[in-house]
Order: sequence, then structure tokens, then C-alpha cells
Amino acid sequence: MGGLCFEDVEVGNRYTAGPHSVTKSEIIRFAQQYDPVLEKIDEEAAAHSIFGGLTASGPLIFSIYILLTSQLQPRLHFLGGLGWDELRMPNPVHPSDELDLELIVLEKRESKSKADRGILRLRIILRNQRRETVLECLVAVLIARRPDAKASG
Amino acid sequence: MGGLCFEDVEVGNRYTAGPHSVTKSEIIRFAQQYDPVLEKIDEEAAAHSIFGGLTASGPLIFSIYILLTSQLQPRLHFLGGLGWDELRMPNPVHPSDELDLELIVLEKRESKSKADRGILRLRIILRNQRRETVLECLVAVLIARRPDAKASG
Repeated sequence: MGGLCFEDVEVGNRYTAGPHSVTKSEIIRFAQQYDPVLEKIDEEAAAHSIFGGLTASGPLIFSIYILLTSQLQPRLHFLGGLGWDELRMPNPVHPSDELDLELIVLEKRESKSKADRGILRLRIILRNQRRETVLECLVAVLIARRPDAKASG
Repeated sequence: MGGLCFEDVEVGNRYTAGPHSVTKSEIIRFAQQYDPVLEKIDEEAAAHSIFGGLTASGPLIFSIYILLTSQLQPRLHFLGGLGWDELRMPNPVHPSDELDLELIVLEKRESKSKADRGILRLRIILRNQRRETVLECLVAVLIARRPDAKASG
């Protein structure tokens, strides 16, 4: 754990992580478990779909965004998510795509009920190697306050 | 594929699927891959977390909702998702929870650009065996129109 706390983060700050290399086997394995439609599992069927080939399932793209959140440099001391808004996946993800996460701090405020945490509102953008957005959303997250800040909080 | 088309679905209709039984190994395996924080992977660490035990990662809960969408009875002939709004996960998911999906049709309209499809706006609710909501959101999806409707569309 550890990492940047509420006091270390300013509105407008940007944090990045990645790339995550998407493989054909990851796309197929994920779809077999959680999105078992033929054109997400079978290359032949996928070739005849509107995408002309295998594409990653929506929840896999969402999972990769969460994975990259854990790889931010510097790390941020997140305590949990409060919810996502305007979640969109405007472009498909294909095998061999390289995905990068960008996280932009839109808003910060102290928690009214708990002195040990604050709330950040973030814009999330996941892009492929051609800089096309493959996932974007707004998210509100809890982030730890610095221990020395609690006393005065 | 196949299943109910745009013409078969009315505003106010409800469709259900489930249950999906969540296992400890599914929670741990998913977190190891996509949400590798100690208290989602290690039972000992989880016992000392604010939840007092292992809980499912957000993207796993989202994945289970998508999985159950493929198990609706009757099936719906979805062509893809357009985006999610107001995605919330108000209660944690624990090992041995049994999750049920409810999908409520809020709105339907024809596609302006493509005669072979329509758009549904749905409320999604995923509940555990105690009827507590563990995921809810609004989603817009593309659904196939009946082949015979295309000619007149």
C-alpha cells in the first residue's frame, strides 16, 4: 500500500501507467469465462463480425483499467471507489494492442464523516498505441489522508 | 445468437438471470490478475481490512453482470453496448454469495442511421441472496430488429 495521499494530490495533476499488452489468449480466455458469445471466443466467427476480428470484451477493458490503476507511478493510496459515470468504450481493443492509462484529477474534497480520508473525482482515459481512446469515464475514489493530517482534521 | 429483437421488447419489461455463485478461488484468481492489492488476494490481510474478509474486485462484479446478461431467459439479441452511466457497487460481494441479475427496459427507440437495429436503455440491478444490491447502473445497448421489420424500416 502506501503512496501519495490526499494532501499530495492537486487538481489538474495527471498520472499515467502502462502499457499493458493485450494478447489473443487473454481476450479469448476472458470471454470464455465472462462474455461467452461466439464472436468473442472463436477467431473464425470473429472474422465475420462487424469488427472483422477478435475484440476484447467490455469487462476485460474495464479490468485492464483497474489493473493499470494499481501500477501508477507514483502510487496513489486509494481506499476504494465510490462509483463510475459516463463510462464509454468508443473504440475496440484488438490482440496486440498496447494500452496506456491516464488519470486526471478534476476535484478534491475532504470526507465530511471520516477524518482519515478524502474524495477525488478523476477523469480516466485508456488509450491504445495509436492514441485512440478505448475506455473513458469519470470516477470518484476515496484516498487516504496523511496520518499527520488526521490529528488536525 | 438469436433471441428477442427490438420489436419483441416493451418499455417496462423485466428480464432476469442467475444465480451466479461466487467462489473464494474466483475472487482471488481475478484479483491476482486485475486488481492485485493485498487485501483482495490474501485472506489474512483481508480479515484485517475494513470488510473483515475477502471481497470481490469491482471489475469481477462488473464481469459477472455481463456474464449473466448472456444467460437471460429468454435471450435478447444484443449487438453491443453504447455506454454505462451511474455505475455503483453499494455493497461488497463475498465468497459464497449468489448473484442474480435484473434488467428493466426504461426506453426504446429505433436507430436513426441503421435500419437493422434499435437502442434500448436499461436499468441493471445485480443483487445477492439477501436482496442487497451489489451493482446497479444504466446502460444503452444496441439490439437487432426483426429481419421482416428491416424491409419496412
